[in-house]
Amino acid sequence: MVSWKNLDTYAAFDKLTALKGHVDLVGMLAGETGGERVKAYQSPMAGGLLFSYAAREVDEDVLEALAALAEEAQLIDKFEELYNGAVINTGENRMVLHHLARRQLGRPVIADGVDKREFYVSQQKKAADFAARVHAGEIVNEKGETFTTVVQIGIGGSDLGPRALYIALENWARATGNFKMEARFISNVDPDDAAAVLKAVDLSRSLFIVVSKSGTTLETLTNESFVKNALTAAGLDPSRHMLAVTSETSPMAASKDYLAAFFMDDYIGGRYSSVSAVGGAVLSLAFGPEVFARILEGAADEDSLATNRDIRKNPDMLDALIGVYERNVQGYAATAVLPYSQALSRFPAHLQQCDMESNGKTVNRFGEPVSYKTGPVLFGEPGTNGQHSFYQLLHQGSDIVPLQFVGFRQSQIGDDIVIEGSTSQQKLGANVAAQIVAFACGKKDENLNKDFKGGRPSSIIIGDQLTPEALGALLAHYENKIMFQGFLWNLNSFDQEGVQLGKVLAKRVLAHDTDGALKAFSDMLAI
Amino acid sequence: MVSWKNLDTYAAFDKLTALKGHVDLVGMLAGETGGERVKAYQSPMAGGLLFSYAAREVDEDVLEALAALAEEAQLIDKFEELYNGAVINTGENRMVLHHLARRQLGRPVIADGVDKREFYVSQQKKAADFAARVHAGEIVNEKGETFTTVVQIGIGGSDLGPRALYIALENWARATGNFKMEARFISNVDPDDAAAVLKAVDLSRSLFIVVSKSGTTLETLTNESFVKNALTAAGLDPSRHMLAVTSETSPMAASKDYLAAFFMDDYIGGRYSSVSAVGGAVLSLAFGPEVFARILEGAADEDSLATNRDIRKNPDMLDALIGVYERNVQGYAATAVLPYSQALSRFPAHLQQCDMESNGKTVNRFGEPVSYKTGPVLFGEPGTNGQHSFYQLLHQGSDIVPLQFVGFRQSQIGDDIVIEGSTSQQKLGANVAAQIVAFACGKKDENLNKDFKGGRPSSIIIGDQLTPEALGALLAHYENKIMFQGFLWNLNSFDQEGVQLGKVLAKRVLAHDTDGALKAFSDMLAI
Repeated sequence: MVSWKNLDTYAAFDKLTALKGHVDLVGMLAGETGGERVKAYQSPMAGGLLFSYAAREVDEDVLEALAALAEEAQLIDKFEELYNGAVINTGENRMVLHHLARRQLGRPVIADGVDKREFYVSQQKKAADFAARVHAGEIVNEKGETFTTVVQIGIGGSDLGPRALYIALENWARATGNFKMEARFISNVDPDDAAAVLKAVDLSRSLFIVVSKSGTTLETLTNESFVKNALTAAGLDPSRHMLAVTSETSPMAASKDYLAAFFMDDYIGGRYSSVSAVGGAVLSLAFGPEVFARILEGAADEDSLATNRDIRKNPDMLDALIGVYERNVQGYAATAVLPYSQALSRFPAHLQQCDMESNGKTVNRFGEPVSYKTGPVLFGEPGTNGQHSFYQLLHQGSDIVPLQFVGFRQSQIGDDIVIEGSTSQQKLGANVAAQIVAFACGKKDENLNKDFKGGRPSSIIIGDQLTPEALGALLAHYENKIMFQGFLWNLNSFDQEGVQLGKVLAKRVLAHDTDGALKAFSDMLAI
Repeated sequence: MVSWKNLDTYAAFDKLTALKGHVDLVGMLAGETGGERVKAYQSPMAGGLLFSYAAREVDEDVLEALAALAEEAQLIDKFEELYNGAVINTGENRMVLHHLARRQLGRPVIADGVDKREFYVSQQKKAADFAARVHAGEIVNEKGETFTTVVQIGIGGSDLGPRALYIALENWARATGNFKMEARFISNVDPDDAAAVLKAVDLSRSLFIVVSKSGTTLETLTNESFVKNALTAAGLDPSRHMLAVTSETSPMAASKDYLAAFFMDDYIGGRYSSVSAVGGAVLSLAFGPEVFARILEGAADEDSLATNRDIRKNPDMLDALIGVYERNVQGYAATAVLPYSQALSRFPAHLQQCDMESNGKTVNRFGEPVSYKTGPVLFGEPGTNGQHSFYQLLHQGSDIVPLQFVGFRQSQIGDDIVIEGSTSQQKLGANVAAQIVAFACGKKDENLNKDFKGGRPSSIIIGDQLTPEALGALLAHYENKIMFQGFLWNLNSFDQEGVQLGKVLAKRVLAHDTDGALKAFSDMLAI
């Protein structure tokens, strides 16, 4: 039986706290011993990836304390409870089953009278069959023409994850013959978002996927109506163009207005739903079901690693533990995700939701306030672009920001050019290698303006190429990291009560039920 | 004569420090008095915008202390020195003249034997004339066809600002008949970035603008060669498709390989260069020179406001001062920019560079270490999208993150839909109004998981519509805010020595001149 306790009640956390400032990164990483450290401090991931933590602020002492903390906090036991169907999302009284969408990790989980793994697989298969029929020209528009574009209408988890994954694989798919249909995304209630997308696509040959678990998300339903109006105005029949991804109990599920409906359930939260029909439908249409299956395979393999009790063989748990050391012992308030891959340009935005919405909380799973820091601010942009932008602050700013690099040995498209003796892909890799060492080791200069103190920690996930398997592993790595950190902070990482108040007040504004400041701001915005 | 001093040497800063935690936002903004406060605490900006600071942590006492600080720190005198041509960028021994690209604010500034305002205007005119000839079909491709696409090749300031401005006005331009040519951007040395853009455009009808002040930026020169190879492979003559934006002394300026060259100089830093030829060429081609002139007009009008010594009539300086109160007295480490406008989707990324690269420093303008915090981490995404993502942490997370909202009463395209009695644009406005009050006032709940403490400060810039003038004003507002904060922190906001070490080490990696950790990481990345 696991015991849910606050971070600051663990004896191992006291030991960890005593190791504040324990590691001198500059010393550890400089010289020949630095090279040996790099080779020692790495851990294989799924999808051909490798997690290198040599430039994080750890040594054998810190790792030992982290291992003790992992054990005392029963991280693996908690993970086992989760994937075996315990009600981990206590606030909403729900199980947390996104891992089951990739593979049966533990015992069969039965809920609502069905085996949940079978349910998720059946919906993936339904979406796969539908996509295959679209690709085969069996499902066509009013004129018998094939569909060329798929537009996802969703917001938050129904948008950021699927969008990030689509962008991550678009070039790969084009280069490998896996590109089936272009995907577009409408998310914002800003009417210009939907209008711009609709102007850019051929409505008559577009499929629209409306994604809302509850079937009541205001932005999404508004954009659905916006799209339906446009289809009708173009003389098209919306029910031949619209698909639904929703829960079986939502008003959308019962509607005859959709060409097909794929189901999700309450046990997979929006920000973890890319591996469900939320991501499955659009990605299967865009790249084919086999590519989506390969993403799931990469994620499943990473999940298996995450069950390992040895922190050195469990990169997801290790990353989580080091992050807690950085946040709660070293006192760093933010973290940056910096993929050296243009294809991952929106991956940080997805992780920003996943991380900040999961662990941006100050009340533990029992509804009691905690007295330690929880989730950090997370942001990021691709390198090398960021080097020419905000890296100045990362190198020489007031606060230390731990960095999470991602890099690949090969590009996706393969077109490259040799300039000054190296390819662009080599330049990209050289830059990320250089940055890790620059941040960690710094460089002394008598002119303090040109002086780099170093001691700025980072890790890097390195792969051969950003393939579907690598992408799935990357996704699962961060999801599992966030889950383990939630366990350590004793949070419910799977609800999001903090977004409710704004919704309530927005409704009051629209009903003109306001006074005081709310009325004054509403007036200024001419509501 | 101005006196450059550290923030913590000002008597007014001591008074400000004594006001830590002075303002109870919940109390100040609740009830009827909250409405009055909203009406009182606002300041007109240029471009029809309004800066509302009612939900920031200020009251008459704090404002008085901030006014005293502004005076003691001689903020306006320093700004006057800057635009009159003093060497403000001490590290690089350069003047700082981006304001002159918009308007002559003070005395003529003569450098390199020319009047700098006349120089900037002449380059704007050169770009305008060139664009007009392209639009008129006077400058055409090898086959006599008109150009339909312009591709900017640049990184950092040569990319983020122009890209953000292009995206901000693309829909507006299409809706108002000002759309001339599509623009695309290649920035990353990741070869997939250039390859994907080149696959998406019609090379024969595309112009390429290579932007590098020094003419030596490795990423940009690499991508230039990448593009040239593609043009040659397509049987096209690169010199009929390529333009240059560079300094007159750079190797690019002397080349015959370009159809035209527009010049910039060392007195406008990359991150402030959107108003120079760096932004002027691409935006004049995309939207016409008149639209670019309107951006400059909005910026110039905002600059004029920034010369006002009354902090309540100088929204740029006031925003800067409140930001320093938040950073150095209240102790907030990050800030978020949250535009409720999909068109501003990349504006936060531009500000992230502008702010973090300018003020992410710990050494003052005399090369001495400072003992106070300087520039915060800055991040952001458009609302309402962010509400369904990272707002959970902003509402209920461990750390308070001051927020900078932007909102408009009208959309750009004008296509809208009424659902449940309101348009999408009204829903967008209702949401931002609701968020301000939710963050500031919170809401008590016995279930702490649903409890909102409030006291989370924000400001909002409100406009009628995101027009070129409004965009120019917005751009100048933040640039000036960053400048004033640099003055307060006594930093040189106009150099970026922190990006140099990474460049040096990357060159060593590419030359295989590595050992230790650097060699180990290079090997892992197969350089």
